[in-house]
Amino acid sequence: MLVEVSLRPGIADPQGATIERSLPALGFERVSGVRTGKAIRFSIDADDEAGARGEVDELCRRFLTNPVIEDARVTLAAADQAVRR
Amino acid sequence: MLVEVSLRPGIADPQGATIERSLPALGFERVSGVRTGKAIRFSIDADDEAGARGEVDELCRRFLTNPVIEDARVTLAAADQAVRR
Repeated sequence: MLVEVSLRPGIADPQGATIERSLPALGFERVSGVRTGKAIRFSIDADDEAGARGEVDELCRRFLTNPVIEDARVTLAAADQAVRR
Repeated sequence: MLVEVSLRPGIADPQGATIERSLPALGFERVSGVRTGKAIRFSIDADDEAGARGEVDELCRRFLTNPVIEDARVTLAAADQAVRR
């Protein structure tokens, strides 16, 4: 299970802006729109995919994100097979 | 383009361990193996997918990760369509 927490569009991302500003001086001219966030990976033991997703959605809402300024993207993998929402 | 930077297996992840330790007290008993990392999203202007991937791989190696302790997973999306490595 991968949860990617990113700042919502319109929220200032000074870390991303700093990366973007430095890249041309380092030889990367064609990168734009840099946004940074957090990645959290974990395993969850659930009966089915819907149960796992429900539990993760609640986890995101309550603890992993600040919904005022952040969005969460959840990617679920059963065993070793990736299923993208 | 999404780059997920995570600590390599075997490298201590105190932030992940703290999240994992607190979850049972918060009502989530079935989460395990929590690992945290950074997520960096950006656009790159390249002629083809191989060119974009090459440039991103170099960017990861030189600036976005510390290869001694970190791994990078790169996910490439052309326009709005996701292509996973």
